[in-house]
Amino acid sequence: MEDAKKIINTGLRGVTVASTRISHVDGEAGKLIYRGYPIFDLSDQTNYEEIVHLLLYESLPDEQQLNALNERLAANRAIPESLLAALKTQPDNALPMDILQAAIPMLAGNDPNAAELTIENAQRIAESLVAKIATIAAAWHRIRNHREPVAPDPALNHAANFLYMMTGEKSEDNTARFFDVCLVLHAEHSFNASTFSARQVASTRAHMYAAVAGAIGSLSGELHGGANTRVMQMLKKINSVDAIDDYVKHILETGGKLMGLGHAVYKTGDPRARILAPMSKKLGELTGNTKWYDMSVTLEEKGKKAFKEKKGIDIYPNVDFYSASLYHYMGIPADLFTPVFAISRIAGWTAHVIEEQFGGADAKPVLYRPSSDYIGEYCGPAECDFVPMEDR
Amino acid sequence: MEDAKKIINTGLRGVTVASTRISHVDGEAGKLIYRGYPIFDLSDQTNYEEIVHLLLYESLPDEQQLNALNERLAANRAIPESLLAALKTQPDNALPMDILQAAIPMLAGNDPNAAELTIENAQRIAESLVAKIATIAAAWHRIRNHREPVAPDPALNHAANFLYMMTGEKSEDNTARFFDVCLVLHAEHSFNASTFSARQVASTRAHMYAAVAGAIGSLSGELHGGANTRVMQMLKKINSVDAIDDYVKHILETGGKLMGLGHAVYKTGDPRARILAPMSKKLGELTGNTKWYDMSVTLEEKGKKAFKEKKGIDIYPNVDFYSASLYHYMGIPADLFTPVFAISRIAGWTAHVIEEQFGGADAKPVLYRPSSDYIGEYCGPAECDFVPMEDR
Repeated sequence: MEDAKKIINTGLRGVTVASTRISHVDGEAGKLIYRGYPIFDLSDQTNYEEIVHLLLYESLPDEQQLNALNERLAANRAIPESLLAALKTQPDNALPMDILQAAIPMLAGNDPNAAELTIENAQRIAESLVAKIATIAAAWHRIRNHREPVAPDPALNHAANFLYMMTGEKSEDNTARFFDVCLVLHAEHSFNASTFSARQVASTRAHMYAAVAGAIGSLSGELHGGANTRVMQMLKKINSVDAIDDYVKHILETGGKLMGLGHAVYKTGDPRARILAPMSKKLGELTGNTKWYDMSVTLEEKGKKAFKEKKGIDIYPNVDFYSASLYHYMGIPADLFTPVFAISRIAGWTAHVIEEQFGGADAKPVLYRPSSDYIGEYCGPAECDFVPMEDR
Repeated sequence: MEDAKKIINTGLRGVTVASTRISHVDGEAGKLIYRGYPIFDLSDQTNYEEIVHLLLYESLPDEQQLNALNERLAANRAIPESLLAALKTQPDNALPMDILQAAIPMLAGNDPNAAELTIENAQRIAESLVAKIATIAAAWHRIRNHREPVAPDPALNHAANFLYMMTGEKSEDNTARFFDVCLVLHAEHSFNASTFSARQVASTRAHMYAAVAGAIGSLSGELHGGANTRVMQMLKKINSVDAIDDYVKHILETGGKLMGLGHAVYKTGDPRARILAPMSKKLGELTGNTKWYDMSVTLEEKGKKAFKEKKGIDIYPNVDFYSASLYHYMGIPADLFTPVFAISRIAGWTAHVIEEQFGGADAKPVLYRPSSDYIGEYCGPAECDFVPMEDR
């Protein structure tokens, strides 16, 4: 094979694919905005359900709207018996993200209107998925540990109910509220890889379930949603504040990366990390174990200093960095960190699917169909003459 | 909500995202080339297994290589008991594409090396998926009709074995060979929507199963792989050659589309349609029912003429147009047409995942992360002031 030409891939960096009304990531200013509202205000003063309303219906709900949404979400939490039965057939060591990706299209089979493409139907499915994905993740965690799934409790909000379904016990108020804030912070982030996958699948006029399953596949990658799990793995590997100097030195020498430090878009720091860090500190104190928080702080400081000195680059903690210790303090196992990301981000995914399919359809070509540059010069610049089997 | 700005979406038309060695679609010349070889030669002189080798290993196999590949594929056809058990839990009316999308990540749970990202492992998984996806589609078709799945027959090639597993009976040689040619024709088509989804998921370093499940989601959309099913629905709706004039008139008056006529890339005709049409004719004659072929020919002629006269545009049959009648003659039900597309295209998807993850990684940014233009001026150009619940 001739291999003169090198594969080029732009990763679509700097290519504007669409306009959107859903969110704005201002990497220079370190700002994140959901439909007009800065993330600092939202994480401080709203809960996840209000964010779901904001993303799906373009406004913060009034009390009546919020109550109605809460009721619909609670009514939608139970998952079909056929899906539970399917989960119980799967091997205990199946990865939770694989299970989530499999479960979403199985929900479609229980929805006789899955393929009806109207905005109202899409909003209905979005709410159903927001409600059910938490139940699926919690149920799978129980099933793989040979325990019966815990039925959802309609008296609890989305965040508290997930922790309850996962553990079988009601959480402390602090823990539930902090988890709620985590869900708010992870709900939406513009055209990130998984959201772009969801939009791309939806652009073929596939249904919402197919698009969300596509997004879950993207999120499972270690460069995207898988990063929070890898932060925890790194912390466990280092395992003490005293070992951080050596670890940072090792990473610099081997050309590696410090997990959770650095972001493709934020160049002056990820606003979400600044909200997550104090929660990790607080839960560390409350659980009497500040080790993971302390390590994170020290790693941030020393990593930042070392990368600036040795490589001349600024690295700041991203959303995954303090999520890891925080989720750990909440009793969430490391391999559920990425599913927890999905449980939140599904609000953003479904809002983007709705915008892709119904937001300004007139202006939109039918589907994403980029071009590529063929460099397969297997027989020089000419086409290959066919070679019959006997002459190969 | 202010809504002054219109959503713009480029659909990435004309945007070159990457170079590739896998295939070349020359829309102007009406050519399709897999790794150097024109589709006319390949469809005439190779079978699907040779194409799998060409796409995954970059060369047409010699006899020894082909025999070894055939053995590996046959050995990989059986699907895990846990997956069969899961399929049996699902409602009979679940859409086959939803079942396929769910099944692929469930295979990952049975593969202890699913997440190991090496080119050899990716090729191993690719072969396993090529072999198993046919078994899954056939098994689901049996299960939904309350029949036991048929075990694969290692004496049959990939095409003949699929038809056997679907029907429980050995096909006529003509039928099996024509189906084989269909698999060759559908195996690869550059950066189409589903392949782009597969690459996009893979770009996050997600595993092959996650990427293929994403691609299946895209393929399920009616603008992409769902189109072949819609051609058949259209033919059944028209139901006679005599009704075609009225149907074309109706479509022109209502601004609709003739399914299977027209293509985003081929401007002078899709070469695959020219290969498919004679096979549809032949099987129509052999089955003593040329109605669906005759209708297709007349619809092509009259549709082409009418669209040229009334709208000044040239429409040519694409790959879906003659596939519909041809699959129908083979006894494949219309809602399996898109799964059959997936059974073939998985060779292309997996080749693209391998290229995305291992082909020139040095030159590639970490993942696809396009930009978007935020136009969500919910509070004018400024950010919204937060409104507490009691004031909403």
